[in-house]
Amino acid sequence: MTQADLPDWRAALPWPGEHAHKHARGRLGVVSGKATQTGAARLAARAGLRIGARVVRILCPPDAATVIAPAIEAVMLSPFDSADTLAALVEGMDAVVIGPAAGITDATRANARALAGTGAAMVVDADGLTAFEGQPADLFDVLDRDDVLTPHEGEFKRLFPGLLDLGREAAARAAARRSGSVVVLKGPASVIAAPDGRLAVNGNGVRWLATAGSGDVLAGMIGGLMAQRMDSFDAARAAVWMHAEAARGFGPGLIAEDLPDRLPLVLAALYPQTG
Amino acid sequence: MTQADLPDWRAALPWPGEHAHKHARGRLGVVSGKATQTGAARLAARAGLRIGARVVRILCPPDAATVIAPAIEAVMLSPFDSADTLAALVEGMDAVVIGPAAGITDATRANARALAGTGAAMVVDADGLTAFEGQPADLFDVLDRDDVLTPHEGEFKRLFPGLLDLGREAAARAAARRSGSVVVLKGPASVIAAPDGRLAVNGNGVRWLATAGSGDVLAGMIGGLMAQRMDSFDAARAAVWMHAEAARGFGPGLIAEDLPDRLPLVLAALYPQTG
Amino acid sequence: MTQADLPDWRAALPWPGEHAHKHARGRLGVVSGKATQTGAARLAARAGLRIGARVVRILCPPDAATVIAPAIEAVMLSPFDSADTLAALVEGMDAVVIGPAAGITDATRANARALAGTGAAMVVDADGLTAFEGQPADLFDVLDRDDVLTPHEGEFKRLFPGLLDLGREAAARAAARRSGSVVVLKGPASVIAAPDGRLAVNGNGVRWLATAGSGDVLAGMIGGLMAQRMDSFDAARAAVWMHAEAARGFGPGLIAEDLPDRLPLVLAALYPQTG
Amino acid sequence: MTQADLPDWRAALPWPGEHAHKHARGRLGVVSGKATQTGAARLAARAGLRIGARVVRILCPPDAATVIAPAIEAVMLSPFDSADTLAALVEGMDAVVIGPAAGITDATRANARALAGTGAAMVVDADGLTAFEGQPADLFDVLDRDDVLTPHEGEFKRLFPGLLDLGREAAARAAARRSGSVVVLKGPASVIAAPDGRLAVNGNGVRWLATAGSGDVLAGMIGGLMAQRMDSFDAARAAVWMHAEAARGFGPGLIAEDLPDRLPLVLAALYPQTG
Repeated sequence: MTQADLPDWRAALPWPGEHAHKHARGRLGVVSGKATQTGAARLAARAGLRIGARVVRILCPPDAATVIAPAIEAVMLSPFDSADTLAALVEGMDAVVIGPAAGITDATRANARALAGTGAAMVVDADGLTAFEGQPADLFDVLDRDDVLTPHEGEFKRLFPGLLDLGREAAARAAARRSGSVVVLKGPASVIAAPDGRLAVNGNGVRWLATAGSGDVLAGMIGGLMAQRMDSFDAARAAVWMHAEAARGFGPGLIAEDLPDRLPLVLAALYPQTG
Repeated sequence: MTQADLPDWRAALPWPGEHAHKHARGRLGVVSGKATQTGAARLAARAGLRIGARVVRILCPPDAATVIAPAIEAVMLSPFDSADTLAALVEGMDAVVIGPAAGITDATRANARALAGTGAAMVVDADGLTAFEGQPADLFDVLDRDDVLTPHEGEFKRLFPGLLDLGREAAARAAARRSGSVVVLKGPASVIAAPDGRLAVNGNGVRWLATAGSGDVLAGMIGGLMAQRMDSFDAARAAVWMHAEAARGFGPGLIAEDLPDRLPLVLAALYPQTG
Repeated sequence: MTQADLPDWRAALPWPGEHAHKHARGRLGVVSGKATQTGAARLAARAGLRIGARVVRILCPPDAATVIAPAIEAVMLSPFDSADTLAALVEGMDAVVIGPAAGITDATRANARALAGTGAAMVVDADGLTAFEGQPADLFDVLDRDDVLTPHEGEFKRLFPGLLDLGREAAARAAARRSGSVVVLKGPASVIAAPDGRLAVNGNGVRWLATAGSGDVLAGMIGGLMAQRMDSFDAARAAVWMHAEAARGFGPGLIAEDLPDRLPLVLAALYPQTG
Repeated sequence: MTQADLPDWRAALPWPGEHAHKHARGRLGVVSGKATQTGAARLAARAGLRIGARVVRILCPPDAATVIAPAIEAVMLSPFDSADTLAALVEGMDAVVIGPAAGITDATRANARALAGTGAAMVVDADGLTAFEGQPADLFDVLDRDDVLTPHEGEFKRLFPGLLDLGREAAARAAARRSGSVVVLKGPASVIAAPDGRLAVNGNGVRWLATAGSGDVLAGMIGGLMAQRMDSFDAARAAVWMHAEAARGFGPGLIAEDLPDRLPLVLAALYPQTG
């Protein structure tokens, strides 16, 4: 990667200042699934921490706490037992990720809607999207232009039936307008669309990312940048690019667990050494 | 390893395409033993994920779930409480591994037979083989030519009494015919035989593989390739070779836990960079 | 780092002698928070062990024991169920860290006061400081000149209201005098002040340290040096410098979990190879 | 390390043969302490596996099983609830380690005595030694010349009161004769003495080994070599030397958890590449 190859969102990356204070650099929440399905949240949380969020907290159903607790150190943990408790825990955070291994349930819908009422910008991924199949307006009604949806094509079709017939770029643009939020339509060339009409197509996609948990890492990365108050559209573009760059450096045999720990290399190449 | 040394199955290796979809690249199940014996399944699952299966799920007895859950991230987990539940979970997967630390029990026999009725190609290893000692027909009757048995000599003798007297190659060939499945007779020079008469003897065996859990990793690697719809005979040959190559690069002091994380190096050397 | 750049406390670093005995090199205790909040203690304990304490023991509430036990190997573990039991466990240790994820509770206050009565020098960090907001004399009354407080600016204000108006250096100096202990006022240029008037400003601060758990690691490092009977003021100065040096070598993407395992590199550069 | 520097026991090291069978290369058992004290057994077990034992099984009190199970993969696990059950599990193993974090209890004494009646050669370390303070004959009566005791000076004094006054070499020699087993008197220059009069003083000791858990790793290494049927005196000499060599390569900041994973480097330097 030469300087000339560096992406245009680079200038917007939220590096810590010399006088950075821990809480200023971003508080990120990640909602975990049930006790047997906590790996996705741990992947997302670690990715969010690596990309620069200062404080990352996993929010989990009570029975998942003893599973998660021994597997984390710098990531923090709070159990919640209702959508209201969850929202109260997230109040005061900068961003929150919901969806990875969340389950396609009433609880997921209630949690997502409760989170939309907090001050935290939201990344909705995976089960957080599929849970609203057949009733997408229940999600769209509460979304904000700073929120981000991250569907792959299957999830996109469930939330925006028929739109993909327009082609991926037009579909993402229409979905962003309809949902009122940033939409990341994932794939070999991920499309990122904002409700204000901005659109980007990622150009560094790599085949190695098609592995379980890869999307959880991406959701955590986007949330981690948003928690640092990067513009959501830029955060999504930057995270998609860095996610692919991390995989490219690894090559065949990549699993999602490799990705968060590759981020320091990717970040170092983006860091403006000379100011 | 020079180009000239590359094995002939290399062209059949299932690399992800540019337009790969996560579920297209293969869903692998791995059946775990009881709560104190889950390491074998975790080794096999990690190996299957590293070798390219997109989604790997450990299927475990209910009491093993809290042991496995904190120790996995990208690998998924579902508990099952009967052979029928197990088969239902595996329906729709591409391949499944049963046997590592499974226990020599009625339940293992019932589980293996139930899995044979699903659409998933099966790798039967370790206790999954020994459980049928004295009643091998109960296993052979339900096997398919795409299934794979992976006995070491001790397990081979239990399942095919007397056959080893023919010599290892003839024994493996006869066992493949008798069982109606691919047979991998493990050893310093592993023999791989298909029921249609194909036979291969692996030539890169290394002494370092004689360590606990090494066979679990191999079973996961074979299953991982089969989940990507590689021909079972080729999958077995390829996995046996890569398994040894991963150990050769490590040398003395190798333990089985090293093997899955060595696969990226082995895969990179096999990847057709120029198309 | 050239020889000329080496800090003046280097000569006081407690390297093991040829005839070192395990218990002579220092016993460190680290008090853990409740079951969902044990990561901070594990980070501090690992840092204390890496920096040379020979025996590091986490002291935890009873319900946290099953969370911590599977996540440690060389670090030891003892549950305690009251401040008295805690003090009895610490009797005979050289140093103890209290505060990381301890909770802002009566129990934390009681534990801190009980520890002050033992023979172990104490590092009070995080919740161990905040717990005394509004009643700082309850802490100061029991502190000794060998004890160390490690507040960031927010915690400093809670314990020493108004003092920061004097400027960071004067504030730290006044706080050390008032509390009767060494005070580390953390920040981009951490100030270390002793009650006898010694004062140092750290000069190698790096921005990457503003990440969750970073302070827990620092507390463990200070405690680890104090456990080896290094003078508390020197231990604080040395730990602050090494903490930053460990982060500098890592760069962007650093998380607190990286820090303890970077210490061997930092220590090797400080080790007097030629005597 | 040049060829000329290689130790004389090198020719006796048990490398796997081309036709090695998994069970031929050695079955090692490691007895674990209670649920909060399992790290020592895990360190010893990992070291035993790395040094070449083919199958390593931790034997634990029932309540420790759920702590150990998630933390192991290639190492196996069996709970036991009495000294008789323990002995039955060890019957058929080649070597067993007892003592690390075992507790100074009646149970430890009963377990050690029960193990002495099995076919497995025994390494008695740490609490396994101290438990016999005041009643050493209860241990010595059941020991065999292939068993190994690994006291540091404190433990040595408890088991052999007064002997150290003879000087370390004479003390170790007398202790070997009195106990009827190999004695490793640990220290900067560890002394290894056999009951038949053989005596060796280790010459590559390093200061970095004075850290918690280091002795557990050594016990596992000795047991791992004995499990491969190396002569116990040679196994002890070889393990002591390799243990130090692993630490030397690491330098300051070493913790015991680093040691097992350094063994491959040490073994590679000892491996007779040209036969």
